[in-house]
Amino acid sequence: MPHISVGNDMPGIVSLIHFRPETGRPLSALAETLLRDPNTLSPGERELIAAYVSGLNECGFCASSHSAFAAAQLPEGMDLVDSVRADPEQAPLSAKMKALLRIAGKVQQSGRAVTSADVEAARAAGASDVEIHDAVLIAAAFCMYNRYVDGLAAVTPTDPEGYAQTAEIIVTHGYLATVP
Amino acid sequence: MPHISVGNDMPGIVSLIHFRPETGRPLSALAETLLRDPNTLSPGERELIAAYVSGLNECGFCASSHSAFAAAQLPEGMDLVDSVRADPEQAPLSAKMKALLRIAGKVQQSGRAVTSADVEAARAAGASDVEIHDAVLIAAAFCMYNRYVDGLAAVTPTDPEGYAQTAEIIVTHGYLATVP
Repeated sequence: MPHISVGNDMPGIVSLIHFRPETGRPLSALAETLLRDPNTLSPGERELIAAYVSGLNECGFCASSHSAFAAAQLPEGMDLVDSVRADPEQAPLSAKMKALLRIAGKVQQSGRAVTSADVEAARAAGASDVEIHDAVLIAAAFCMYNRYVDGLAAVTPTDPEGYAQTAEIIVTHGYLATVP
Repeated sequence: MPHISVGNDMPGIVSLIHFRPETGRPLSALAETLLRDPNTLSPGERELIAAYVSGLNECGFCASSHSAFAAAQLPEGMDLVDSVRADPEQAPLSAKMKALLRIAGKVQQSGRAVTSADVEAARAAGASDVEIHDAVLIAAAFCMYNRYVDGLAAVTPTDPEGYAQTAEIIVTHGYLATVP
């Protein structure tokens, strides 16, 4: 049961967006821009960063949601998502994605944990400044979304089917479709 | 020096908003809504939560900025900000603000650290569901802004006078004035 009366029985962050659409709008606009707008990183690659960081923060709702959203948009599907969440260094990923996930993992601990060497390694693997920026901001943003959902104890469904259904909606209509 | 070439010599998050206005817009809209829109918590009280969490995350730019923004909007000025950042329990604050800051401190660690007892204590001290929601989201949002600024090593000026000048701009024109 959520810590506050959200006035609806929707799951996770969707319940909070409906409780307080004033903040739900910029939160959803940020997710749409970061994860779905045109970018040299594919939506699936960006959702993978979101799923990985949400797993590190042990946010069940966000980790299940963004794992489903990543799987729905990556040719390798949930197998790749599972291997990245278990250990990105051992996952079948490009050197660039591994370097960006390494930076994201540092950001999850603290922004100050990211070193010049981490950034140089990403650049040497072919990452652009915008890709490095976006990886840092996606990781930082999920340190917010994860804390928001769990800090208010929003409802976390346990049935994987529900997350797969939401993935279809997000892939088709985007994050702004969740805002009242 | 920032980890990426931001193409300007502006300080902190302002440099990143100008580097990537697509994400800068929702980030600034979120700050405006959370910290300045009409609310039963005053702008000064909300900036106090932002300054406290930024201090816990050891983000020099955000802690100095939001301390200056809080001081500029609280009758007790920087003395109150300093005492809250040193120890909110000993600061001359209402029981409600102490309970909300206690929740914000938990959110800084992890969303899962917030207990029903923390929320009950805030409610017993007079906090509404919206105030509890907003305290959680402000704390969560600064876990993002702090990681964003430090994860990219954005420039952190050391002169306090600059932060006081920015406070005047924010108090007069708001956060959306920083977006190109």
